[in-house]
Amino acid sequence: MDASDIRILSAGTALPGPPVTNAELAGRFGMDALWEQWVEVFIGTRTRHLSVDLGTGEIHSTLADLGERAARRALVSAGLRAADVDVVVMGTATPDALMPTTVNVVADRLGIDGVPTYQLQSGCSGAVQALEVARHALLAGGHRTALVIAGDSCAKHFDLGADLRAMPPAELVNVVLFGDGAGAAVLIADAPPGSVAIRRVLTRFTGRGRAPGQTVEWFGLAERDTRRAAIAEDYKAIEESVPRMSAEILEELLADLNWKASDVDFVLPPQLSGRMSERIGERLDLPLAEEITCVEETGNCGNGLLFFQLEPALQRLDQGDRVVGIAVESSKWIKAGFALERV
Amino acid sequence: MDASDIRILSAGTALPGPPVTNAELAGRFGMDALWEQWVEVFIGTRTRHLSVDLGTGEIHSTLADLGERAARRALVSAGLRAADVDVVVMGTATPDALMPTTVNVVADRLGIDGVPTYQLQSGCSGAVQALEVARHALLAGGHRTALVIAGDSCAKHFDLGADLRAMPPAELVNVVLFGDGAGAAVLIADAPPGSVAIRRVLTRFTGRGRAPGQTVEWFGLAERDTRRAAIAEDYKAIEESVPRMSAEILEELLADLNWKASDVDFVLPPQLSGRMSERIGERLDLPLAEEITCVEETGNCGNGLLFFQLEPALQRLDQGDRVVGIAVESSKWIKAGFALERV
Repeated sequence: MDASDIRILSAGTALPGPPVTNAELAGRFGMDALWEQWVEVFIGTRTRHLSVDLGTGEIHSTLADLGERAARRALVSAGLRAADVDVVVMGTATPDALMPTTVNVVADRLGIDGVPTYQLQSGCSGAVQALEVARHALLAGGHRTALVIAGDSCAKHFDLGADLRAMPPAELVNVVLFGDGAGAAVLIADAPPGSVAIRRVLTRFTGRGRAPGQTVEWFGLAERDTRRAAIAEDYKAIEESVPRMSAEILEELLADLNWKASDVDFVLPPQLSGRMSERIGERLDLPLAEEITCVEETGNCGNGLLFFQLEPALQRLDQGDRVVGIAVESSKWIKAGFALERV
Repeated sequence: MDASDIRILSAGTALPGPPVTNAELAGRFGMDALWEQWVEVFIGTRTRHLSVDLGTGEIHSTLADLGERAARRALVSAGLRAADVDVVVMGTATPDALMPTTVNVVADRLGIDGVPTYQLQSGCSGAVQALEVARHALLAGGHRTALVIAGDSCAKHFDLGADLRAMPPAELVNVVLFGDGAGAAVLIADAPPGSVAIRRVLTRFTGRGRAPGQTVEWFGLAERDTRRAAIAEDYKAIEESVPRMSAEILEELLADLNWKASDVDFVLPPQLSGRMSERIGERLDLPLAEEITCVEETGNCGNGLLFFQLEPALQRLDQGDRVVGIAVESSKWIKAGFALERV
C-alpha cells in the first residue's frame, strides 16, 4: 500500500456546556474589569467551555463524554457505524483516570469491541501523534477503518477555591488559557474518490537538554496532602520557542512534499492563545493560505484543538486544495504537523 | 516489507533496590506471621522491589530512572547506541507525571532527539501494545530501529501510613501483589542472520459491557482532599477471566500462524501473582513448552513483567525455537500476545 492511500473521511468535535466569558470568570474569582481586559488583550481568549459548573463546582462532563460525542459526530459525518471501526487511537494529557483508560471507556460506549485500542499520553501534539499511530496501523495491513480521538478536560485541576490575586503568573495563566473539548476523525485505508489524502505526518521529540515548558502533576494516594501546584507554564519559553518551531515544522513538511509556500490553501496553526496564534500566523510565510483558528471561542482545549480547525477545513476543501496543520507540544517539546490534499 | 521482517534484537530490565520480603512488609505494617503465610500461599509472591524506602518513606527511584536503566541495558545487549534509535515507544499505567511524559524524560537522558516518541497509557498489556506500535512504525517505512520501553512504579500510591487491618480486600491485595520495575527491547527493520522474528502481535479490546477489573485513580488539584481509595482490584473477576482469556489468546495466535501447541518451546504467561500464573499455566495446553515466570521474585510490576520473561527467553532460543507471550489488561480488558521465532 502506498503511504498516501490513507485518507481522512471526516472530523467531529464536542464542547462541554455553554461558553464561559472573561466577565463570568472575573465574577467567579472576584477579579476586576482591569483583569478582564488583561485576559482579552494579552491572552486573546474571549470564551472557553468548561467541564465544571462555575457556580456549583459540579463536574458535568468527563473526557469520555466529550470523546464519545466527538466520535459519534465523526462517524455520522463519515457515513460509518461503530461496527466498521477496526482500530481506535486516542491522545490526551488529562485522562479521566489512570486505569481504565478513557479510550476503552469510549470504545465500550460506542459499542466497539474486539479491535486494538491505544491511548497516547501527550500534550498539544497528541492529535497528530494519534493520527500517525492510526495511519501506521492502517498501512501495516489487516485494518481498514481507524477512529482517532483527542481532547482534554482540566476539570480535575480547576480549583474554584483558588485565590487568583496570590497566584504566581505561571499558574494564573492556566485559569484563563485553557478550555475543555475533544475532537475525532475517521481514517480509511481504501480511498473513495474525492477524499482527502494524508500526504505527510511529522512528529519529532525536540526536548533534548531542554527544560519542560509545561508541567502537569498528578497526585497519588501517598501524596494527596502535598500542597504544591499541579500545573505550571513557562510562558516565556513557550512564547520564544513555539513560533520558531512552527516555522521549522512548516519548512520540513513543504520540503518533504516538494510543495511551495504558495501551494498551501489552508493553515491550521498552533493555538496556545488567541494572541500567540496571531504571532505564529505572522511568522508562517504562507502568502495565499487562509488561517483557521478557534481558540478565541474555545480556549486552548489542548489535544482537541486541531479537530476544531480540521472540521471546517475538510468542509471547504475543493479538489487539489492543500492543508497544513501544525502543533507544538511545549511540555518536553514535540514538533508535530501534517499535510493534507483533496484528490 | 514483509511483516515478519521486524526482529527483536535484545531485551533489558531494571528493578529498584533490593528485594523486599513478605516478613519485611509484615514488620513495616504491623502484621503477623499468619498474614505473611497468607501472602506466601494465596498470592504466591515471595519478594518484590519497591521504588520507596519502607523505613524512611523516601522515593528513591522514578519510573524514568527504571526505564532509562532498562533501555541502556537493551541497547548495550543489541550492540547499538542511542543515536541509532529512530523511534521510541513506552507503555505504562503509572507515569511519573502527566506532563512531561516519562518517555520524553527517558529519551532526553539517553541522548535521543529528533525522532518520534510515543507513550501509551495501559495496564499489563502495555508492553505488547508498545511492541505493536513500534512494529507498525517500522513497517510503515522511514525508520530502522525502535526502542520499546514498558514498566510501572507504584510509589506514588504506596501509602506507608495505611492500616492494613482496616483495609477492604480489594485494596489490601495491592500492597502485596505489586512491585516496581521496567523493561525494554530493541526492534529492527532489516534482519541480521540468526535474529528473532516477530511472527504475530495481537491486541484486542475485550471490555464491551464489562465492568473494570482494576481501577487506578489519580487526583487533580481540585480533588486532593478526596479520601477515596486510589487503587482497587476486582480479584474475583480477574481470577475468573484471565485464565480463560489467556487460553483464547494462545488459541488465536496458534491458529493465525498455523502452529500446533507442540510447536511452542517457551511460554511467557500473564503474571498477576505467583498463584495465578500457576493456574494459567495449567490452563494453557502446551505439552512441550517451558514456562518462564518471575513474579515470585519481582512481584507484579505491571507493564515491565514481559521483559523480565523475554530477556532470559531470548538468551535461550535456538534456531527454529518458538515463543508465545501472553498478557491480559484487566482494567477494562485487553487481550494481548505475541509469537516469536528465531530464524
